[in-house]
Amino acid sequence: MAKKTNAFYAQSGGVTAVINASAAGVIQTARLHKDRIGKVFAGRNGILGALTEDLIDTTKESASAIEALRYTPSGAFGSCRFKLKSLDANRREYERLIEVFKAHNIGYFFYNGGGDSADTCFKVSQLSESLGYPLQAIHVPKTIDNDLPITDCCPGFGSVAKYVAVSTLEASFDVRSMCSTSTKVFVVEVMGRHAGWIAAAGGLVEDHGIPVVILFPEIPFDQKKFLTLVDKHVKTHGYCTVVVSEGCHNADGSFLAEQGSRDAFGHAQLGGAAPVVANMIKHALGHKFHWAVADYLQRAARHIASKTDVKQAYELGQKAVELALKGHNAVMPTVDRISDTPYKYRIGMAPLAKVANVEKFMPRDFITKDGFGITDKCKRYLRPLIQGEDPPKFKDGLPVYVTLKNVAVAKKLPAFSLK
Amino acid sequence: MAKKTNAFYAQSGGVTAVINASAAGVIQTARLHKDRIGKVFAGRNGILGALTEDLIDTTKESASAIEALRYTPSGAFGSCRFKLKSLDANRREYERLIEVFKAHNIGYFFYNGGGDSADTCFKVSQLSESLGYPLQAIHVPKTIDNDLPITDCCPGFGSVAKYVAVSTLEASFDVRSMCSTSTKVFVVEVMGRHAGWIAAAGGLVEDHGIPVVILFPEIPFDQKKFLTLVDKHVKTHGYCTVVVSEGCHNADGSFLAEQGSRDAFGHAQLGGAAPVVANMIKHALGHKFHWAVADYLQRAARHIASKTDVKQAYELGQKAVELALKGHNAVMPTVDRISDTPYKYRIGMAPLAKVANVEKFMPRDFITKDGFGITDKCKRYLRPLIQGEDPPKFKDGLPVYVTLKNVAVAKKLPAFSLK
Repeated sequence: MAKKTNAFYAQSGGVTAVINASAAGVIQTARLHKDRIGKVFAGRNGILGALTEDLIDTTKESASAIEALRYTPSGAFGSCRFKLKSLDANRREYERLIEVFKAHNIGYFFYNGGGDSADTCFKVSQLSESLGYPLQAIHVPKTIDNDLPITDCCPGFGSVAKYVAVSTLEASFDVRSMCSTSTKVFVVEVMGRHAGWIAAAGGLVEDHGIPVVILFPEIPFDQKKFLTLVDKHVKTHGYCTVVVSEGCHNADGSFLAEQGSRDAFGHAQLGGAAPVVANMIKHALGHKFHWAVADYLQRAARHIASKTDVKQAYELGQKAVELALKGHNAVMPTVDRISDTPYKYRIGMAPLAKVANVEKFMPRDFITKDGFGITDKCKRYLRPLIQGEDPPKFKDGLPVYVTLKNVAVAKKLPAFSLK
Repeated sequence: MAKKTNAFYAQSGGVTAVINASAAGVIQTARLHKDRIGKVFAGRNGILGALTEDLIDTTKESASAIEALRYTPSGAFGSCRFKLKSLDANRREYERLIEVFKAHNIGYFFYNGGGDSADTCFKVSQLSESLGYPLQAIHVPKTIDNDLPITDCCPGFGSVAKYVAVSTLEASFDVRSMCSTSTKVFVVEVMGRHAGWIAAAGGLVEDHGIPVVILFPEIPFDQKKFLTLVDKHVKTHGYCTVVVSEGCHNADGSFLAEQGSRDAFGHAQLGGAAPVVANMIKHALGHKFHWAVADYLQRAARHIASKTDVKQAYELGQKAVELALKGHNAVMPTVDRISDTPYKYRIGMAPLAKVANVEKFMPRDFITKDGFGITDKCKRYLRPLIQGEDPPKFKDGLPVYVTLKNVAVAKKLPAFSLK
């Protein structure tokens, strides 16, 4: 494996506060191995950049610009919601990828995304083998949803968890101080379509004496039990905080709030569970309420990112390159937890065949028996992931985030039309 | 004025990230003048604590607990939404206040709130004079709405402004990186019922190249012009960020979104302008959208408070005590700006007669001619107010916020029923 070829890196799906830290890990590590890796090309807008041969030459970016990626939320090269399905249905697209990689002497494919991207990465690897093109495909995990299997956690999640825990704590203090004459129930809606990991983070404020009720996507919504518990908290504490996952649904599978539109993956676009829940409380119990929907604010909140998360995001990017240099293919670096207290982990590796298309939900024993809270076991899992602060620099009161030059690589192939 | 009497301090209305810093300023300064000021009693749940003789003995709190108030959002003694109206309509309540103050030898009344509280503070001062009870009433300004007159800015505002500017920047980076295949318009709703100061802070991200459209309460909503501008930004930049004030309304005065309920002051309880605007864009232009409603998260976000704001909140509390010791009555300490760059200010003083019931809106020359942005003049005003970070300490990944003991003072009077 002493070849010297270029590398391709792309960001996929919903961006996070730390996906650029993984990009920094990939690019900085590749730059340390110039004998093996030529240029790192990034896909403009994710895998679309490879399909349309719209490659970005990252060698045009200064060392300080790449270093600044560690502190910059969002996807610096552009991301996309574009799923390549099965090889049968999308063979033309897969073959085009290989064609582009060949044209630009790309031997390493680093794909930074969630479950859908792990699947694409795996398929690209399979096809490159069957086409006899020696491509090494490494998936760099990323998803605020924390739903990838094998790895103990996913970069992006720890920072969202920290944002949700901090925001829930702050807003609960607010409500607590106003509840004698004003708002008694505060409802905050957080992301997490199928898995309740993000909502679970709100449960960490219990340690600060806050009465909190969590609505998980894993637990069918039971309105009667929910209202009884909220009312009990209001009667006992004077107020109550509710953290509702956007994916919370009724027993029949219908979401508490659907906006009716669907994204490119065919997933329903959610949002608005918080006002639904808040109004339900108002009508049934008469309590004055306020509600918030954090939406993108939560996943973009680099200013309150978890230092642990930033570190792991970087290390997984770094490890992806090291694995490639060791000749690995169709694998994903993972976070393997060794202990909770003190928190210790190592960076391991999983075969993509075992990662693709597997979703990891909250284990039942992470959720309290009544379905509305998190257990001590869950808290032991979550606490290390939100540890530490790693704020960006600020200038004139605002964080200093980098915008890259993103210089295009000259095209070598005919245009390709996306169907 | 060499009397030695106790002081009463109360927090009023919506709490902020820094109102407790003002409390620290009042209490710590009073503790420096034990020859003149005996105990500082705080009202449990604001002025209600005075009416019901539910006083908190702040001398039971350690120096470190009071110092920790500088870093703790919300109202540490409880706040309330309870407005004493005219002396004619509420004479019984005003007289009760004086009675409680007399019973506890309270000669200083520090009231920490917005416009309504300034009015109450002024009336208490007037009544105490007419009843021959020598009370000095000092108003400590506080309102995220930034709508008090005379003072250049109001404690609480700078921190919300910083939160809104930072969050808008981060979410805009997020949308920018996804817009090729996903969300093209992001709408974030912020507070500000009548004045657009908070929404204006979103305009600071223009300096970072973000296309942003602001909907102010001061400018009647013009749907056609708005949609045209949003579409133009999407066509030019690929995406657009919209910051909508909860108080945004149509030309006929109807709010974009009313929830129908009203608070104790008779104000409509707002929320939900963001989904209204987002859906409007979807239907008219077809752009994929996401929306967020920051609600309490914005005013409670002590973790991203403005250092300037925290400092001024403290200094105004400190100055309130100093003014009282100098014999002033029916006044409010103010922030008087000396220069924008470098930012210089002094703490001044305004008579409450000129503060009560005056709302300060955004000047028209702070809003661009088209009504959807902020001018350079406005930016020069806003920038200093979000300067500096002053994060709390963190433990186990969460901010360390203090919860006081709030020990009650023994009652001396018969119970009082609130009508």
